[in-house]
Amino acid sequence: MTTIAIIGAGLIGRSWAFVFARAGLPVRVWDADPAVLDRLASDIATMIHDAGGDPAIAGRISAFPTLAEALEGADWVQENGPENAGIKRALFVDLDRLAAPEAILASSSSALMPSVWSQDLPGAARCLVAHPVNPPHLVPIVELCPSPATSAEAMDRAEALFRQVGQVPARLTREIDGFVLNRLQAVLLAESLKLVADGVVSVQGLDDTIRHGLGRRWAFMGPMETILLNAPGGVPDYIRRYGPMLARLTDSAARGEAFTEAAGQIVAEAFPQTDIRARQDWRDRELSALDAHLRARSERTD
Amino acid sequence: MTTIAIIGAGLIGRSWAFVFARAGLPVRVWDADPAVLDRLASDIATMIHDAGGDPAIAGRISAFPTLAEALEGADWVQENGPENAGIKRALFVDLDRLAAPEAILASSSSALMPSVWSQDLPGAARCLVAHPVNPPHLVPIVELCPSPATSAEAMDRAEALFRQVGQVPARLTREIDGFVLNRLQAVLLAESLKLVADGVVSVQGLDDTIRHGLGRRWAFMGPMETILLNAPGGVPDYIRRYGPMLARLTDSAARGEAFTEAAGQIVAEAFPQTDIRARQDWRDRELSALDAHLRARSERTD
Repeated sequence: MTTIAIIGAGLIGRSWAFVFARAGLPVRVWDADPAVLDRLASDIATMIHDAGGDPAIAGRISAFPTLAEALEGADWVQENGPENAGIKRALFVDLDRLAAPEAILASSSSALMPSVWSQDLPGAARCLVAHPVNPPHLVPIVELCPSPATSAEAMDRAEALFRQVGQVPARLTREIDGFVLNRLQAVLLAESLKLVADGVVSVQGLDDTIRHGLGRRWAFMGPMETILLNAPGGVPDYIRRYGPMLARLTDSAARGEAFTEAAGQIVAEAFPQTDIRARQDWRDRELSALDAHLRARSERTD
Repeated sequence: MTTIAIIGAGLIGRSWAFVFARAGLPVRVWDADPAVLDRLASDIATMIHDAGGDPAIAGRISAFPTLAEALEGADWVQENGPENAGIKRALFVDLDRLAAPEAILASSSSALMPSVWSQDLPGAARCLVAHPVNPPHLVPIVELCPSPATSAEAMDRAEALFRQVGQVPARLTREIDGFVLNRLQAVLLAESLKLVADGVVSVQGLDDTIRHGLGRRWAFMGPMETILLNAPGGVPDYIRRYGPMLARLTDSAARGEAFTEAAGQIVAEAFPQTDIRARQDWRDRELSALDAHLRARSERTD
């Protein structure tokens, strides 16, 4: 049985602990801040309550006061520290020195490519990124990104482990800035912010276009299958017919300069009354309900 | 009570007929192809069966052999002809001449801006685009796009009508190539095709990243609210902190040259066994189930 070490127990680390323990695996947790460890049991109890999890999950999660103790016997290390190259590099020097030689060392980083913090480590071959969407216990995707030094075996073990615990791994063949998910999100955000800042559509209208339009399909099939099903003559034919229009739209789309504070201000002003904390709880309830809906549908029809 | 004329009864026209009749409105249908009109009753019966609709819907939909008869007494004309500027222009000359003076003339066009086909028509002020996602009876968004000549009153009536029949109108303030939805889809498709063509990720991995990742949120909230809920310090602060990274990703993203037949071939080869027709039926069942799920959640918690 794979023993998991969770290094850093903020929002993402706690959710990872929940994912692995939910799948029956023993989870050992450490955080640099003792207060975070002190709250761990009550935070996990809240997650079990909110997500309707088995109370036995809590019994599989243990907090340890030192990094070395948390790593004892761990086969998989999931790191969730700050998105700072120097801090992460220093942490992985310790992880590589203290973890068992056969353990895989994975980072939840969304912003740092694995070569940045694993370059030249003795154990660089066992280092990789396993990037979740927050919170991973409610959203199953996890991007697996190797550095040039990462072994195929480490990637294989990563893919197998995440499938085993009910997540959906998406395996990259090589590292790329932003991985896949944030590259896709970035271009959509850029064009969204530009359309809103240019006054073409309201923030509400923009969100409705995704929420009540494109997002309806993307919740259960990806953009590639979406094309496939709109291409009775085959996808190359689709590209021949619609490619010129899509290319024209892409070439006239927003670039990086769309990310202005002024655009951010317009978005903020569109949600004047929002209690962010309450709405985050709403989002997590909706994610949980949607996950249950999609899992039930998938069992029935896929 | 608003009387609807559906001009062109292919996939989209039939679905529009269903939407308006489902809301209790009388619907008059014409198509240039008599065979399409002959099949209309059986096609509507199939939709009622598949979408679990009230059998009374069929009684509100009537086929007429001429354009003039279909337009008789119509307050709202929804056109669903070919995406060809010359054909559409000629059709709208007829619609503007034959329809009652107070009727609104809307096109379902996804590709042609309204000025292209309504420019200089005597009734240009009552012409606009009402662009759905296919099929509109399962996906509620409808983009409302005015030409420079469209009156505010026509846009107001459009918005009110679509809300009345249970769709979600997104109102553009001015015309723009691709409107909003296809501009957003285009940039996401371009980057997706590039990542797949470059071999960074498989077609399956790309689709999983949306389907089991970003699409989970976008099914019930838009990208702007997604930012808001990830910005405890406010959206301008979020832009200050993550804007430089997002701008870097956008500036290195695919442009129009990503729409190559070679990329299309890679997508096609990733779905070797797909029975497109059966999978389209699956998609529509999933859209219907998701719509029911989201409507039930919305009644509970929004």
